[in-house]
Amino acid sequence: MKGYILLNLLNKVFKFETVQAHCDIPCKIYDPIIAQISALSVVRFLDLIAELEKKDELTLADQAQLSRLVKEKETHVEQVKHEVRVIWGDYFKQPQFDQFPDASKLVHDLMLAGSACKQHIDRDKGMKLLELTNQFAEMYWATKNVATYKAKSPYLPEELVVHPKLQ
Amino acid sequence: MKGYILLNLLNKVFKFETVQAHCDIPCKIYDPIIAQISALSVVRFLDLIAELEKKDELTLADQAQLSRLVKEKETHVEQVKHEVRVIWGDYFKQPQFDQFPDASKLVHDLMLAGSACKQHIDRDKGMKLLELTNQFAEMYWATKNVATYKAKSPYLPEELVVHPKLQ
Amino acid sequence: MKGYILLNLLNKVFKFETVQAHCDIPCKIYDPIIAQISALSVVRFLDLIAELEKKDELTLADQAQLSRLVKEKETHVEQVKHEVRVIWGDYFKQPQFDQFPDASKLVHDLMLAGSACKQHIDRDKGMKLLELTNQFAEMYWATKNVATYKAKSPYLPEELVVHPKLQ
Amino acid sequence: MKGYILLNLLNKVFKFETVQAHCDIPCKIYDPIIAQISALSVVRFLDLIAELEKKDELTLADQAQLSRLVKEKETHVEQVKHEVRVIWGDYFKQPQFDQFPDASKLVHDLMLAGSACKQHIDRDKGMKLLELTNQFAEMYWATKNVATYKAKSPYLPEELVVHPKLQ
Amino acid sequence: MKGYILLNLLNKVFKFETVQAHCDIPCKIYDPIIAQISALSVVRFLDLIAELEKKDELTLADQAQLSRLVKEKETHVEQVKHEVRVIWGDYFKQPQFDQFPDASKLVHDLMLAGSACKQHIDRDKGMKLLELTNQFAEMYWATKNVATYKAKSPYLPEELVVHPKLQ
Amino acid sequence: MKGYILLNLLNKVFKFETVQAHCDIPCKIYDPIIAQISALSVVRFLDLIAELEKKDELTLADQAQLSRLVKEKETHVEQVKHEVRVIWGDYFKQPQFDQFPDASKLVHDLMLAGSACKQHIDRDKGMKLLELTNQFAEMYWATKNVATYKAKSPYLPEELVVHPKLQ
Repeated sequence: MKGYILLNLLNKVFKFETVQAHCDIPCKIYDPIIAQISALSVVRFLDLIAELEKKDELTLADQAQLSRLVKEKETHVEQVKHEVRVIWGDYFKQPQFDQFPDASKLVHDLMLAGSACKQHIDRDKGMKLLELTNQFAEMYWATKNVATYKAKSPYLPEELVVHPKLQ
Repeated sequence: MKGYILLNLLNKVFKFETVQAHCDIPCKIYDPIIAQISALSVVRFLDLIAELEKKDELTLADQAQLSRLVKEKETHVEQVKHEVRVIWGDYFKQPQFDQFPDASKLVHDLMLAGSACKQHIDRDKGMKLLELTNQFAEMYWATKNVATYKAKSPYLPEELVVHPKLQ
Repeated sequence: MKGYILLNLLNKVFKFETVQAHCDIPCKIYDPIIAQISALSVVRFLDLIAELEKKDELTLADQAQLSRLVKEKETHVEQVKHEVRVIWGDYFKQPQFDQFPDASKLVHDLMLAGSACKQHIDRDKGMKLLELTNQFAEMYWATKNVATYKAKSPYLPEELVVHPKLQ
Repeated sequence: MKGYILLNLLNKVFKFETVQAHCDIPCKIYDPIIAQISALSVVRFLDLIAELEKKDELTLADQAQLSRLVKEKETHVEQVKHEVRVIWGDYFKQPQFDQFPDASKLVHDLMLAGSACKQHIDRDKGMKLLELTNQFAEMYWATKNVATYKAKSPYLPEELVVHPKLQ
Repeated sequence: MKGYILLNLLNKVFKFETVQAHCDIPCKIYDPIIAQISALSVVRFLDLIAELEKKDELTLADQAQLSRLVKEKETHVEQVKHEVRVIWGDYFKQPQFDQFPDASKLVHDLMLAGSACKQHIDRDKGMKLLELTNQFAEMYWATKNVATYKAKSPYLPEELVVHPKLQ
Repeated sequence: MKGYILLNLLNKVFKFETVQAHCDIPCKIYDPIIAQISALSVVRFLDLIAELEKKDELTLADQAQLSRLVKEKETHVEQVKHEVRVIWGDYFKQPQFDQFPDASKLVHDLMLAGSACKQHIDRDKGMKLLELTNQFAEMYWATKNVATYKAKSPYLPEELVVHPKLQ
């Protein structure tokens, strides 16, 4: 049937277009800042847990609070890992690996640093995760030829975060 | 029993501390950029939907792609609404409302703009959502006495986004 | 091509229909009872936490139970906030605000009451949330000209809940 | 060490208490209305899909709308199944099965009715799911010796819903 | 209009095909191994909780760890219940019930065993859940005429798991 | 105060134990079968989409079905990526990388193969994902010195899956 042949013809044409669309134009928006904010949050929750650690004895209200902070810490570590995996797994291709041959090593170190934040309550574990997430952000912006700068977060824990220079 | 009396005593002391902790120090990190990136994504998905609309006939692959774009659009609109609700509902208190008496009106307009983005596929609906999310960000940073600037997103759809001046 | 012109023509016609559809007929079903049941659950979890607080010392099993109750409390507070945001943000428009000029104030108070339930373990915080959620329900049903009545929940915590008069 | 023996002793005592607590007092609040509202929503989405079916040709906006409606239908069917599973799987025990020997049969029929709603777009499939969910609600309230009544939902699709008589 | 009549005609034909498709060919892949691995995880988390129970006193780090383990236990119990409900509720139909009249009884016992794992920290509760999940797997494979064998999991807790004989 | 010194002392001791616990014993259970079943499901959904593609014209019911299949495909691709990321990111450490220096390369290829399955509807894209997931499973079991075998899945799409030899 004519219509059918035409449809298949269009089909082939469009499929090709689709491929182009997906190879040349990234559909999703990739921005490491979401992972960086989550890493900042992990440090923040570790600081709040440390406040509880100072106490000689914990009330039930304190234990409830600890339980909440641990859960939030867990959630935000997972978000760091997820966001970084998405950028690395969807956006990084040969050109980016040619520019940064150790990209996968950095991502894997970050994953382990994240696990350490889940398992422990020491602030330095959180700072390590934040540092690696910032390194990942620096690398990402470099692949897009966007210069970066470091600035203290305008909220607690007031730690350094890498940002793209957009002005 | 002595220990018990002591425990209750500590209990009262700690409870008081806890209250302080929660009124003076915000536990969570609030940053409107997550909502702004989601709003940008909504515009992006509307642009990709518009590309499909240009076609005279849709192949099954195109229809599958449309279905994905609609779902992603839906998800990102929801994230804009959620993130804004969290900042407005958790962080905004009397001082912030004294500074911005129309804050709740802006937030509600933003919610309706989000619904419009779910229900329609016109780019202007997405731009309206992005614009209101930027206004919300400007307001938020003003309550923290942080100056802001506007810059084009360093990725498609390359629209203006409000950022805090941190340098 | 003729087909194309026709398609665009239909396009315009249908778009208009779609707009109508979304302005006149609410797509989603809005019922505050889900938020009210979640608020009841928050009170219930606070009561179960209070049972643990009575104990002089907590076993590991008790601490595990506390952790579960805190998590469930957190989840249900979030559901109250989410459900109320959806009704307020999607359904409330000018006519509803003309009828209840303080609707947004009530919703915001409810959000803060929810946060207090997350941060503390005092029953009165839960009762405050339930009370505000009931007020929201009363307001919602009034905008639909549906009379309401109050009745004790037929399960613990056996507190008053606002229901629409449907008989 | 004395303290340790005491702790173990308390441990045994408390464990016993915990068991009691969990066997006699239901921790969670069970209310079938959430499942019933979701079932109503499924009927509502099927009605909105039927509106699209009336059209001779679908615009891209219509197809996007169809995609949203199908996703919402899917989500709400899943919620019906989940809520019913929780009440049946957590709350129903020997006494309830003695009172309603066919409870599991009804629950399973409801699961299949839900699957049919996912796979098809016929309104009658949705009405079947709503009917079974109402039957489940009637059975649940009967196990709690709470009388019920039927009333039209005060919103579209304005179908009958079983409610507990609380006045 | 001719096209319209044709469309409706095709419509009827296709609808019939769709029905066939869904009755004869299962769309989803059903494999009880996901539920079995989750049940194994529950036992694993109970073992890790038992390690903490051995300690005379818990540090804050230990309490944080307990909180994580309880949350993970909760999540995996829920996954066991969900996966089993899906297979029972979607795949089991009259022929399967004729072969296993007590299928629903087994599924319900499994649901209660899951609840017990949420409420308690005793290893035997986890083993009961694993045992019932294995029985469910044996039953499922029998309905597909696939022989099974039992083998120790190649990772902790190294307990027996039912597998289909595929070689 | 004596008790406090003792507590700190225990604290140090236990922290050390905790570290040990987490470095030597994996807390979570890692099993690639979940990723493999999800990859199989992706192939299955692609086959069902292909059935729709055969049709000359799609009814609204067909389009609704396409929308469901696309969403399920998307969800299962995401699960493949997530499960593989967890095993690679949590379990793989220096010894595993010494044994398989290209592990990260394989994982990244798998991520790209997953993206291709989201963006396209060709069966070969799904087979590529399944093949890489099987390779990942083979590698994982090799790191645990567990032999493997290949067997056709006992359900559609009846494709080869790598399993550990446990008998």
